Amino acid sequence: MIVKVGIFGATGYTGVELVKLLSRHRQARIVFAHSESHAGARLSDVLPCPYDIPLLSADDVPLQAADLIFSCLPHGPSAELCKRALDEGRRVIDLSADFRLRDATSYARWYGHSHPYPDLLKIAVYGLPEIHRSAIAHAQLVANPGCYPTSIILGLLPLLEAGALTDPVIIADSKSGVSGAGRKASLATHFVEVNESLSPYNIGRAHRHVPEIEQALGALWNGAPAAPLRVIFSPHLLPISRGILSTLYVRIKPVHEGWTELFHCRFASEPFVRVLPEGQIASIAHAAHTNYAVLSVHPVADMASYLQIISCLDNLVKGASGQAVQNMNIMFGLDETEGLR
Amino acid sequence: MIVKVGIFGATGYTGVELVKLLSRHRQARIVFAHSESHAGARLSDVLPCPYDIPLLSADDVPLQAADLIFSCLPHGPSAELCKRALDEGRRVIDLSADFRLRDATSYARWYGHSHPYPDLLKIAVYGLPEIHRSAIAHAQLVANPGCYPTSIILGLLPLLEAGALTDPVIIADSKSGVSGAGRKASLATHFVEVNESLSPYNIGRAHRHVPEIEQALGALWNGAPAAPLRVIFSPHLLPISRGILSTLYVRIKPVHEGWTELFHCRFASEPFVRVLPEGQIASIAHAAHTNYAVLSVHPVADMASYLQIISCLDNLVKGASGQAVQNMNIMFGLDETEGLR
Amino acid sequence: MIVKVGIFGATGYTGVELVKLLSRHRQARIVFAHSESHAGARLSDVLPCPYDIPLLSADDVPLQAADLIFSCLPHGPSAELCKRALDEGRRVIDLSADFRLRDATSYARWYGHSHPYPDLLKIAVYGLPEIHRSAIAHAQLVANPGCYPTSIILGLLPLLEAGALTDPVIIADSKSGVSGAGRKASLATHFVEVNESLSPYNIGRAHRHVPEIEQALGALWNGAPAAPLRVIFSPHLLPISRGILSTLYVRIKPVHEGWTELFHCRFASEPFVRVLPEGQIASIAHAAHTNYAVLSVHPVADMASYLQIISCLDNLVKGASGQAVQNMNIMFGLDETEGLR
Amino acid sequence: MIVKVGIFGATGYTGVELVKLLSRHRQARIVFAHSESHAGARLSDVLPCPYDIPLLSADDVPLQAADLIFSCLPHGPSAELCKRALDEGRRVIDLSADFRLRDATSYARWYGHSHPYPDLLKIAVYGLPEIHRSAIAHAQLVANPGCYPTSIILGLLPLLEAGALTDPVIIADSKSGVSGAGRKASLATHFVEVNESLSPYNIGRAHRHVPEIEQALGALWNGAPAAPLRVIFSPHLLPISRGILSTLYVRIKPVHEGWTELFHCRFASEPFVRVLPEGQIASIAHAAHTNYAVLSVHPVADMASYLQIISCLDNLVKGASGQAVQNMNIMFGLDETEGLR
Repeated sequence: MIVKVGIFGATGYTGVELVKLLSRHRQARIVFAHSESHAGARLSDVLPCPYDIPLLSADDVPLQAADLIFSCLPHGPSAELCKRALDEGRRVIDLSADFRLRDATSYARWYGHSHPYPDLLKIAVYGLPEIHRSAIAHAQLVANPGCYPTSIILGLLPLLEAGALTDPVIIADSKSGVSGAGRKASLATHFVEVNESLSPYNIGRAHRHVPEIEQALGALWNGAPAAPLRVIFSPHLLPISRGILSTLYVRIKPVHEGWTELFHCRFASEPFVRVLPEGQIASIAHAAHTNYAVLSVHPVADMASYLQIISCLDNLVKGASGQAVQNMNIMFGLDETEGLR
Repeated sequence: MIVKVGIFGATGYTGVELVKLLSRHRQARIVFAHSESHAGARLSDVLPCPYDIPLLSADDVPLQAADLIFSCLPHGPSAELCKRALDEGRRVIDLSADFRLRDATSYARWYGHSHPYPDLLKIAVYGLPEIHRSAIAHAQLVANPGCYPTSIILGLLPLLEAGALTDPVIIADSKSGVSGAGRKASLATHFVEVNESLSPYNIGRAHRHVPEIEQALGALWNGAPAAPLRVIFSPHLLPISRGILSTLYVRIKPVHEGWTELFHCRFASEPFVRVLPEGQIASIAHAAHTNYAVLSVHPVADMASYLQIISCLDNLVKGASGQAVQNMNIMFGLDETEGLR
Repeated sequence: MIVKVGIFGATGYTGVELVKLLSRHRQARIVFAHSESHAGARLSDVLPCPYDIPLLSADDVPLQAADLIFSCLPHGPSAELCKRALDEGRRVIDLSADFRLRDATSYARWYGHSHPYPDLLKIAVYGLPEIHRSAIAHAQLVANPGCYPTSIILGLLPLLEAGALTDPVIIADSKSGVSGAGRKASLATHFVEVNESLSPYNIGRAHRHVPEIEQALGALWNGAPAAPLRVIFSPHLLPISRGILSTLYVRIKPVHEGWTELFHCRFASEPFVRVLPEGQIASIAHAAHTNYAVLSVHPVADMASYLQIISCLDNLVKGASGQAVQNMNIMFGLDETEGLR
Repeated sequence: MIVKVGIFGATGYTGVELVKLLSRHRQARIVFAHSESHAGARLSDVLPCPYDIPLLSADDVPLQAADLIFSCLPHGPSAELCKRALDEGRRVIDLSADFRLRDATSYARWYGHSHPYPDLLKIAVYGLPEIHRSAIAHAQLVANPGCYPTSIILGLLPLLEAGALTDPVIIADSKSGVSGAGRKASLATHFVEVNESLSPYNIGRAHRHVPEIEQALGALWNGAPAAPLRVIFSPHLLPISRGILSTLYVRIKPVHEGWTELFHCRFASEPFVRVLPEGQIASIAHAAHTNYAVLSVHPVADMASYLQIISCLDNLVKGASGQAVQNMNIMFGLDETEGLR
């Protein structure tokens, strides 16, 4: 079986990474690649890559030729083209934030405009295979998770499912490479501004990934409803191209032991979550250029009610295009790891 | 007035930075520079720098020619040469960790051997001018603070002095450039191992700076003695040469407001602490290649009992050699900023 | 068909890259991985990678279980283990420099000791597929080319074959990432020494790749024997992990035109040489993490007798392990691109 | 004596570097700083630096309050404001390219528009102290040299003055940090595009520094007029913030020896040119954050008619603002090194 796929927004960093992953995939074939600003050119002329693929404008893409559409566009424009593809009966994986929040009110507050297609929020499946694998398999529309949320949710999932947290406040100190900011010119991503520095930004619960994280983790929180789960999320811009590391701080029931073992058990059958043995510490190098989320779990000496988790991934792979391919594999009944090892 | 200074351990990163700062200082003159492994060579032959200074072995340095000795040696060897200088009646600033902990038992536990000169711990002054300026002025032996502790202590000082903390647990998520690891070959500092990654290390209260931080901050903690101040300190290795950023998380009395104003007031007369206006966020670029600690203070939306502080400095300047020169200026009655602006 | 392979020296940068490439290869299976210093451990415990492969000492490796042995050891030790594998009747691809020079005298001069098995130099095939594809197919022992030589030879091959050079002196100004220096602790590869700098080294024809380049290109030089081909080769250490860019300067017959076209024709059927269209300039980003050598050809304005060529590749892939896999594919009659796209 | 200075274009990389150098200078005082796009703000709000200086629009700057005006604006706008300052009788140092070429025709060809004030080209002095010190002392208008030209001209000066070159063709393979491209958002300077790569650009004599280099070196060339001096200049963009390294290839009279000695003699009394001893090789680390040009000279083994020179500097210091301060010191009779050590 060959899945025929189309790509909206092929000239950004997630777009090119997706092309790269699909070009290695034995059961997928790219039937079109879209770029509005570079329509008429070929991908290999726009970026330093070997993919000699023609780029089409949105009006010219053969939607019907594709079984599946990936959208790598920014939020806003992405919703429009996803809608068009869905109307044509295509299945869609949207890598933007447009269909991640279930609540249209929350979307409006965080993204500054009301959601154009709130009905689609009801059918969209949040594409984190480690939680929603079976729903993904049958989804018409998959909302591919954000990069930071993937790292943070996977890093806390076993604890929340086990009811091990004693405090609804989670501290997530996250650090990301610059490709997470997208491929457009800005002073904030100028080499000299980023290099040899580290810059916190949107701290104090100001980042748009806060509601996405709280939506996913809040659904698993079994504490008092009067004290809902809250994440203090502090993103920092790292002077590297790709990779995310989240350092997570939680309060836990100190009676429990064997935290690493708990994580090992939870993820034993997950093909793309790697829990390091006790004594090893995850780093971005563990995950870069792979589809793995790599975790390590750390008790705090003399402070039995605290636990630290380090969660790493490549923001362009498990944090975006790799997870999208994983979702495609699930949606079309393929080996979940095809094209991703 | 000219202060004649000698330097032990001139060929490490803090040693060379010290030479650079002193070469700009109008009232200091280097009378000797020591290096055991490069004795006989000149500094400009050992490192890519313009300082054509002969390097002497410890047995050959003219201790009596110096008013002040800086030691840039690693802990252990540093204590030995500092002792020798003190016995000759010289004043000493030790940049190593050998005289920072007041408690010899704690030293033995964290550094793996008993302290060779526990009596000197009683006379050593912890060289953080923002706390101990007057004691530094008269000190015979100054223990120059560690780089991480300087960033963390300064970032919390106004809150502890104001009695604003409500929880003795402080989370300090710190990130440091590689020069903090010293200038010796190791796989951990190999370019390819560090580059394009981020690596937590010694997390879970395993780093030797934990007791140093708790000693300084604990003295200011006015909570219940039964619940002493504790820092959960997570250092991360950044792929940059120099700079530290500490992201600090504390719980505070929510009634108070104007946290940035509190910091501004506390540090108004401090020449080397800069508190950014509300709305700006400190980054390593603010502090790199300067003697400033740069702070910004951030309430957390919808969570009035939490506060975040970002504290940045250059680990080789305010975190080591610049602070040492600042201490020298205080000890010898010079303008505190000489050579440091 | 499955090729069973063994790897000597699996814990260096080329070793791990080889494991990564082979793990994606549909017709290869690793039957053992060797590391003397880490024997008994598993690869994923030694490096931040997901390959959970046991590491064996040389005395324990099952040579007979492998159809092909790759050696990723340094020159010297590599020759010894390659000899042992050849004696057992195994085919061998040696990624070290031990079998690249045909002349044992030259080897002795450049490597500081006489060659232990000069007879093997006669049977070794220089593994540059673009020149020696058919000999590689039948070789018992392939000497995998050096990273710098691959970039320089491919960048000049069409000109030499066309007899277009008018001057036997070639200037090759090459820049390499740090992984080319290998994975062992040294001050020269310390992050702080490399970062934010650029360091020429072994310039003035002092690098061991000079005889390798001159051996390959000299064989194609059709000028006067009294004026043999000479390369002025200047390597520079770049603050990046991987990638080589060689800027080549030659004098050519000005009558000729269409230099880019000449390169396109020469490499049209080569799967791993990409010649950019006129007007584009090759950069390391074009080749990083791929098995391509990427070339661009540039006339010099107002100076018709000069030509510049930019030649880029990834030193760990086309400059080492990728080229080794390409050679394996040729040796065993597989699709030459298997595992490499 | 205090020189009162004004700065046009204070918010670019050379502008801020100039502010930093002047803030350390004992005999200079900044009386105004200009920025059109940030007029009304303060420098420390625009960039991560401690300089709390108000920024004025061009219409508001008090030209008469300044003895000297530095222009850090881009070419084009720079000429306009320099003209205005000159008309007010101020002395001017222009860091842009507007007054470097003596020939208005050449300016028009390279910069795409005719020069607005060709008469000023006649009075402008090319501000390279190592050649034009006495003319600089009396200049009304100094054209501060380009960063690449400074590195290349200084690297060849002793050879041309000694008449040692035998071939008018010079190859200059230069590599520069990103701050040389200025501080404005563009895809070409996006962190991810630059990082982990190396990109040649404007090669083949296409860069605007070619005529500047040939103007300076051509004046010293004593070969046949029919064969004028020509530079093949290949700039490459390095993934570092600051620093230039030029690798220079020339043909020389092989009878001569002691090339390093020749350089030592030529620059013995120059305060900011450092010639390394034989056997050492210059690197960017030698020059970064200093006003030194650092040179090393290298014969080529077995090829006595070739010579290589490595020439390094910091493009923001000796390649721009440091050299501008050096010129200021000369113009006002101050110690030439004031503020620069």
